[in-house]
Amino acid sequence: MRYRLRFLLIAVFTSLAASLHAQSARDQVRAWRETREPQIVREYAEFLAIPNTKNDGSALRRNAAAIVGMLQKRGVIARLLENAPWPPAVFGELRAPGARRTIVIYAHYDGQPVDASEWRGGAPFAAQLRELRGVDWVDVPIPDRGRLNPEARIFARGAGDDKAPIIAIMNALDALKAAGKQPTINMKFVFEGEEESGSAHLPLILEANRALLNADAWLFCDGPTHQSRQMQVAFGARGSMGLELTVYGPSHALHSGHYGNWAPNPGMLLTELVSSLRDVDGRILVKGYYDDVVPPTARELAAVRALPPVDSALRRELLLNGTEANDALLAERIMLPGLNVRGMRVGQVEGLAANAIATDAKASFDFRLVPKQTPARVRELVETHLRAHGWFITHTAATDAERLTHRKVVRLSWGAGDEATRVSLDQPISQALTATLDEMLGQRVLRVPTLGGSLPTSMIEHALGVPLVIFPIANHDDNQHAKDENLRLQNLWDGIEAYAAIMTRLDAHWPKVTP
Amino acid sequence: MRYRLRFLLIAVFTSLAASLHAQSARDQVRAWRETREPQIVREYAEFLAIPNTKNDGSALRRNAAAIVGMLQKRGVIARLLENAPWPPAVFGELRAPGARRTIVIYAHYDGQPVDASEWRGGAPFAAQLRELRGVDWVDVPIPDRGRLNPEARIFARGAGDDKAPIIAIMNALDALKAAGKQPTINMKFVFEGEEESGSAHLPLILEANRALLNADAWLFCDGPTHQSRQMQVAFGARGSMGLELTVYGPSHALHSGHYGNWAPNPGMLLTELVSSLRDVDGRILVKGYYDDVVPPTARELAAVRALPPVDSALRRELLLNGTEANDALLAERIMLPGLNVRGMRVGQVEGLAANAIATDAKASFDFRLVPKQTPARVRELVETHLRAHGWFITHTAATDAERLTHRKVVRLSWGAGDEATRVSLDQPISQALTATLDEMLGQRVLRVPTLGGSLPTSMIEHALGVPLVIFPIANHDDNQHAKDENLRLQNLWDGIEAYAAIMTRLDAHWPKVTP
Repeated sequence: MRYRLRFLLIAVFTSLAASLHAQSARDQVRAWRETREPQIVREYAEFLAIPNTKNDGSALRRNAAAIVGMLQKRGVIARLLENAPWPPAVFGELRAPGARRTIVIYAHYDGQPVDASEWRGGAPFAAQLRELRGVDWVDVPIPDRGRLNPEARIFARGAGDDKAPIIAIMNALDALKAAGKQPTINMKFVFEGEEESGSAHLPLILEANRALLNADAWLFCDGPTHQSRQMQVAFGARGSMGLELTVYGPSHALHSGHYGNWAPNPGMLLTELVSSLRDVDGRILVKGYYDDVVPPTARELAAVRALPPVDSALRRELLLNGTEANDALLAERIMLPGLNVRGMRVGQVEGLAANAIATDAKASFDFRLVPKQTPARVRELVETHLRAHGWFITHTAATDAERLTHRKVVRLSWGAGDEATRVSLDQPISQALTATLDEMLGQRVLRVPTLGGSLPTSMIEHALGVPLVIFPIANHDDNQHAKDENLRLQNLWDGIEAYAAIMTRLDAHWPKVTP
Repeated sequence: MRYRLRFLLIAVFTSLAASLHAQSARDQVRAWRETREPQIVREYAEFLAIPNTKNDGSALRRNAAAIVGMLQKRGVIARLLENAPWPPAVFGELRAPGARRTIVIYAHYDGQPVDASEWRGGAPFAAQLRELRGVDWVDVPIPDRGRLNPEARIFARGAGDDKAPIIAIMNALDALKAAGKQPTINMKFVFEGEEESGSAHLPLILEANRALLNADAWLFCDGPTHQSRQMQVAFGARGSMGLELTVYGPSHALHSGHYGNWAPNPGMLLTELVSSLRDVDGRILVKGYYDDVVPPTARELAAVRALPPVDSALRRELLLNGTEANDALLAERIMLPGLNVRGMRVGQVEGLAANAIATDAKASFDFRLVPKQTPARVRELVETHLRAHGWFITHTAATDAERLTHRKVVRLSWGAGDEATRVSLDQPISQALTATLDEMLGQRVLRVPTLGGSLPTSMIEHALGVPLVIFPIANHDDNQHAKDENLRLQNLWDGIEAYAAIMTRLDAHWPKVTP
């Protein structure tokens, strides 16, 4: 009894002390940052000024070189992992004497293409600080000194996705140095340059550098924080696979009066095909589709139900009276497989519409995969489904003979696809990261079983067999992939504090025994 | 008994004599034409050289003036029926002493827009004679004298649709004059300049000239001859009405991973809506839609079943394994109401496809109406149907409040629409015209209860209450409305002979008593 009491007191005291220590460490990082906000933003603006659109190979290389320079300036051993003719990855390594564990921190420096004419200011790489006045974002200068409005945002391609973690890491290293502290975990950095192109050649880099990249876990630093603006850790991402299809009508467009309701209308055939694949509530109607799907665990469901409610605010913002499946929670929906219609193209509409029957009809889909689903199995199930619905399937342009022989002909063009990942909340990295962030925040970090979107996480898991958790810092409303991409300054400040905590406390929170 | 025999002999003799007379009249017209084929084609080329695209007001006026000149040269009293600011109609009148009946012959001189770069030769109004060599149309010069290849075609915008009847009428008048013959029926001519714009202001001309246009019947000279290349008379046309609709998704495009199978996908909503309107076999699923539809009469069905078979050849040409409703006959299908998907637009496909949920989805339809259906009733039935399927209907852009209040919002934009026409095969004009053409051809002209396409026939019927039959001369494969529009010379030669027969024999074949 006495022994147990003493043990309890020690545990409480230890925990309290650690928490106070963490708060004080966070305060130190914050105090340092508050003295140099303009400098931090100015360095970020210089980094964002290097164009990074995914097809601009030489610009991507300049980004990689700049990152190597930024790392070396912080005492990190850094170099390029070449992967010609594709963009190199930046590799960095910082060893911590006495550390038990090694993590790889991943981010990417490439960005989506831009149409400059759509951007406010017309210059997507001339990073600009702006504040919201009423409903308008107004340019504000970066002052020489003093504090900045934490709700101000820096606008540029890449500001949120995904240069934000890179600049936050640099500043976390600076803050630790200023506080006279050392990281306590071995860190490796991989900053990829091909994520927006689907990381098609990342596996080559991973395979070629398997020993170099040896680690206990990866932190995958991409994606958004929670819509409630709270920090979140995600333990997985859905996989994805694209599908383009074409159904065939008459060999040339026909007058809809003279040939209408005689010649098959490809728009109607497409409508029938799409309706056979899924219903309006998102349920996929392909036979056997859910057989491979592992339902969320009770713990995962409890985790998403504990998240701050965002659905009704999102519905208002998006002018939606309701959502699919009787307004089921967004966080629960994204744990399920998805089939999204990206687009449909038949004939013409509105001013260009002609009284004609089109020659073909096209649709574009993206499938979202959950754990245990594989792209190959999804392809097989969908093709079997279509054949059962009377479709003749071709993977190249249908020949005249095929069109004359089969009543319903569809051409399918599949993407390569990738699988979902979902790490257990009991994994050491899951426990260590959540404990580190809980301690720093003084409250529980949000635990999200999976992101709805897809990341090259399964490639890394497949290539290296290493557990991987996702730790995003960018605001959810950062217009990623769109015009006027931005990063909210408070998200950058929070990110710096979080990385400093990870660098100094993750190793300490690592469970002694694998559960 | 003897009396009946004598009557029969007289009837046979009279009929034989008339037939021989008709054949001899046709031979005279043919012989005249064979002496001057190059001149006929050259005059037509000059007429076609005047651009006639529907939005070119001054060019349309030059066409009208040219037609007035061509009519006056043939002794026809001719002038413009002004309808400013819209194009004028050309009116002509030629009285026949002793004629019992008066007909109005209608054609139109305006044409569809052209994209010169798409046309062989790049000059849609530089009319060019061409012959088919292998699979290619090769330019041939118009000789000074001699016969032309009747399978040669003259290529220019308007060659088939619808300057062909105008030039054929001019030559029929010339041929009669050369043979020393007079028309035996009073003829009025109305050549419209706004048909390709939907004849929107034709009713104004008709109302303003009601007395001038008084007649027993109209011959509506537009459209194609039968796909078998035989001459046809059509007793009606389907009405038509356009519908553009937009269904709403989220107010801005969403990442399909993060929000997919939560945010309603407008492509799926559109698919559901379209599927609810009609099935892949062309059956319209709107409740009560067929209540107003008068089924084809036994006589009409017999007429279409007597037409030369064209379906299987068309299927081969169009690379179609089958057609809607279990390969039902084209000629039967176009006697039914139709609902054609002109186009659908959702997000993007193929190279432009993004992993996104689009903000809206659009579809464009044309309804084809049969007798007794009205545009107003169709609109009412469709809107009632959509409301019964849970749609909130708006006719302007949906407001934020409407989108937030209703789960399924659709914006509808209806065309004005027009009704079908279908004249009985027993009408005097039907009997007189078929008898005239039967006599001239020495075999039965094809009798088609209705064309599948739509013509401003119902406007004329509504405005003037006069029966109207459709008598086309252009080849069915004339590329009307498309690049490389053309007229096959044999169709022009046949047209000249037919108009000459109509001018001289229609009155004689007019039934004495309305049945």
